[in-house]
Amino acid sequence: LSTDDEDTFKILIATDIHLGYLEKDAVRGNDTFVTFDEIMKCAKQNEVDFVLLGGDLFHDNKPSRKAMHNCMEALRKYCMGDKPILFEVLSDQAVNFGNSKFPWVNYQDENLNISIPVFSVHGNHDDPTGADGLCALDLLSCAGMLNHFGRSLSVEKLEISPVLLQKGSTQIALYGIGSIPDERLYRMFVNNQVTMLRPREDENSWFNLFVIHQNRSKHGATNYIPEQFLDDFLDLVVWGHEHECKIAPVRNEQQLFYITQPGSSVVTSLSPGEAVKKHIGLLRVKGRKMNLQKIPLHTVRQFLIQDITLMDYPDIFSPEQPNVTHKVQAFCQQKVEEMLEEAEKERLGNPQTPEKPLIRLRVDYSGGFESFNTMRFSQKFVDRVANPKDLLHFTRQREAKDDEGIDFEALLSRPSSEVLQLRVEDLVKEYFQTAEKNMQLSLLTEQGMGKAVQEFVDKEERDAIEELISYQLEKTQRYLRERHVEASEEKIDEEVSVGLRGGKKMLKPEGRTLGVRVGVGCKGPDRERRREGTFNGS
Amino acid sequence: LSTDDEDTFKILIATDIHLGYLEKDAVRGNDTFVTFDEIMKCAKQNEVDFVLLGGDLFHDNKPSRKAMHNCMEALRKYCMGDKPILFEVLSDQAVNFGNSKFPWVNYQDENLNISIPVFSVHGNHDDPTGADGLCALDLLSCAGMLNHFGRSLSVEKLEISPVLLQKGSTQIALYGIGSIPDERLYRMFVNNQVTMLRPREDENSWFNLFVIHQNRSKHGATNYIPEQFLDDFLDLVVWGHEHECKIAPVRNEQQLFYITQPGSSVVTSLSPGEAVKKHIGLLRVKGRKMNLQKIPLHTVRQFLIQDITLMDYPDIFSPEQPNVTHKVQAFCQQKVEEMLEEAEKERLGNPQTPEKPLIRLRVDYSGGFESFNTMRFSQKFVDRVANPKDLLHFTRQREAKDDEGIDFEALLSRPSSEVLQLRVEDLVKEYFQTAEKNMQLSLLTEQGMGKAVQEFVDKEERDAIEELISYQLEKTQRYLRERHVEASEEKIDEEVSVGLRGGKKMLKPEGRTLGVRVGVGCKGPDRERRREGTFNGS
Repeated sequence: LSTDDEDTFKILIATDIHLGYLEKDAVRGNDTFVTFDEIMKCAKQNEVDFVLLGGDLFHDNKPSRKAMHNCMEALRKYCMGDKPILFEVLSDQAVNFGNSKFPWVNYQDENLNISIPVFSVHGNHDDPTGADGLCALDLLSCAGMLNHFGRSLSVEKLEISPVLLQKGSTQIALYGIGSIPDERLYRMFVNNQVTMLRPREDENSWFNLFVIHQNRSKHGATNYIPEQFLDDFLDLVVWGHEHECKIAPVRNEQQLFYITQPGSSVVTSLSPGEAVKKHIGLLRVKGRKMNLQKIPLHTVRQFLIQDITLMDYPDIFSPEQPNVTHKVQAFCQQKVEEMLEEAEKERLGNPQTPEKPLIRLRVDYSGGFESFNTMRFSQKFVDRVANPKDLLHFTRQREAKDDEGIDFEALLSRPSSEVLQLRVEDLVKEYFQTAEKNMQLSLLTEQGMGKAVQEFVDKEERDAIEELISYQLEKTQRYLRERHVEASEEKIDEEVSVGLRGGKKMLKPEGRTLGVRVGVGCKGPDRERRREGTFNGS
Repeated sequence: LSTDDEDTFKILIATDIHLGYLEKDAVRGNDTFVTFDEIMKCAKQNEVDFVLLGGDLFHDNKPSRKAMHNCMEALRKYCMGDKPILFEVLSDQAVNFGNSKFPWVNYQDENLNISIPVFSVHGNHDDPTGADGLCALDLLSCAGMLNHFGRSLSVEKLEISPVLLQKGSTQIALYGIGSIPDERLYRMFVNNQVTMLRPREDENSWFNLFVIHQNRSKHGATNYIPEQFLDDFLDLVVWGHEHECKIAPVRNEQQLFYITQPGSSVVTSLSPGEAVKKHIGLLRVKGRKMNLQKIPLHTVRQFLIQDITLMDYPDIFSPEQPNVTHKVQAFCQQKVEEMLEEAEKERLGNPQTPEKPLIRLRVDYSGGFESFNTMRFSQKFVDRVANPKDLLHFTRQREAKDDEGIDFEALLSRPSSEVLQLRVEDLVKEYFQTAEKNMQLSLLTEQGMGKAVQEFVDKEERDAIEELISYQLEKTQRYLRERHVEASEEKIDEEVSVGLRGGKKMLKPEGRTLGVRVGVGCKGPDRERRREGTFNGS
């Protein structure tokens, strides 16, 4: 498989490029753009047949103009030209790309001279939102620069029609699922609602390639996708979303397929997984044989992380020493110097690698030690590391958890890199769980509200909450009209509670409904006005 | 000129399409998209050589995904294909499109099969902003779907290099100026800083076409561009920005050129100018002769406006009558019915025209009459007009103006269509003028702050204010360092005031500086911390 011939597909595999991540940062602002350029240039230099991306091409659901512009620039620069495309699409493209206004693979559009088609599923960062269900990839798709596939419109069942590709004698069935909330996809799998369609002819002659963008590691009982859920007819799974580079294919011994996890091409959190050297893959497929060549990325900013636990050095310092904080500080400084030295050595001979590395020193100061001013400490390295603000991180072994409700203050005061990882839904959930009973709402479900707030915050969908509320209000009004409830307030409240207790599906399209009254303390004129306003459609 | 031959340029002219205007409105949401489709389809049907747009293709500086998607869809649908392009670009395209990453006209890109090139300047709605100086048109440009020209990087002088086009024996020199704040452009003209370069050869053989997007009517002494400012060698000026359709070319008898003002293709304010029937133009140019054919737009929502002054009907009602408000209401209702009838008649035979018209009745109730509840009045027409919320508008002859400061409450409670027209800079200006003296800032200029707030609000540039403040702070610090001011607070304040009073240019890059103290009441530790933080670059 090391020789390239007319029967061998050459596919560049990458994922989680997160264009636009930290784009306002004076030091790191261009990192994602530079690395995307490196990746696409690599695709061109290797004359691949196509590029396969595993989601999160963009970091923000609504990418900045700069991010979108830089992305299009690289795609136009590296993916257009006169190189002939040597493979065919055999499947029904109107099904594969049904969501597009131009439902065919871009290289077959007679108005576009594509040299390297790019195929991508969307990730959780760049997923479709809003009334039109568009995502950033759809803009690229509409511009003819990318082929967005693996898109599903149903939230209850998935039927995945592969893109069928043929080059010489080799046939690839390309399956994909764009990011879906893990719990939902988990439920669909458990309820047997995920079907992967297979080509009618020569079922066994196809190389079955599958791209997924979900949690691979277990984040909770149903908050990930167990590998075993995936069909065993697959040959290779490209797993996006997980940022640690584990690109060498690993065999799942139960299902007998291989999994490659390319990992992100940019460090978005200062955690150990991201310190693993970043790679992309050059996948060769001939017949049903494959070979995946690791290609190191040279433009990725180095990241070194180290943990120290002060208690582990009883010979050097103890909390009782008078000058202990000073000693700890000197010790930390020495550790950082060592990491910087290591980074510098490694960077030698790699002129594309940015000068300043990311460095994180995690200091466990349990056992009576005191932390010190990290700002002042960081000043010493301000010109030598890319992340002076969060260079040092103090941790303590977990204390007993305070259960008396959610502490927003504490949450918001966490360092920014951790706030970013807090999931908005969790905040909403905790809020609903801890809110006073008589403050709760009856017509809005926890899950619906959680989803709306998340879209509002994470995806900048400004109308998400308003849309949810109008939707629920309308449903309730329809229910009341259908039951001919007269306009007395008590009766309406009663009917609504009955509707809720009776488990009428129409009142809770998603998730569990909190069976408590709406509008307690909101009586008379307000109520009246609201009713008049809404029934009259204004 | 009515026959199309190989020497005749056919150019479709349109402007102010405002894609995305009111896109969330349940009734009017798609209006701009539908009309843009009509315009581009018209270009295709007429087999024009190119489309020329006069700015404000987008309503929002950061168009929604839907607006961008719909725009690209229409461009790809109507402007790509096998129709040969029969004209050449003779000028240096690296100059004409110097701001683009692909600085050549899109139809000459060998990877794009363009049938109708679109040329556009930017308007005030879709102008370049932010650190990268990109605008929405640049995204289309980067995607190869549009040719953005008339872009200038200097704020002090303009040197306009025309795009030189040749078809058969006809030569067009196409000049353009993307929108610039009127005052600035006025000043540049007055200071002779606007130069329109002319082709070296056969200067008099060229048809000189110029596109501008500025105020044409006088909004203040220097807040517009007098027609006389424009060079008299021009043949035709396409004037964007003004929404009233005055597309028939009018000769400026002083300069001896013609001006066509196509007007917007969507009604964005309920004012009389917008009630003029909307058109686009089909311009034919042969040699130095031209002909402009008006093409009515069929998809534009009808808009009828009427003014009534209650005092003008002393025979019907007087303020003293007991039932007068009731009578007025009935009278208004009748007027609206008449307008609806007129609209319906006109709409007959135009199946593309949306059903519900825009209707505005302006009622001058000066002279002791009382207004009535417009909400309740509008309810009667909620299913028949597109704008029930602002159907009726009460006016009164201007009262003596209250000078005791700006009344934000009153401003914000105006009907939304008027709030949209309020200029943010005006609010900031009024705020600065009325703020208590001791609350004012000394390092921030009124104009700089006004501009930053405007970008923040109008253009959704979230970093505009922060950037201004960092910029001014840095300048001040540099000034202080250069003068070796010691770190005593009094001395610094003193130096800063000297710097300000002395009129040092570095302290006020734009506009007049308000010579009052900064940070009054902010002493000691706060001051110290701020200084430490910024001098150390964190």
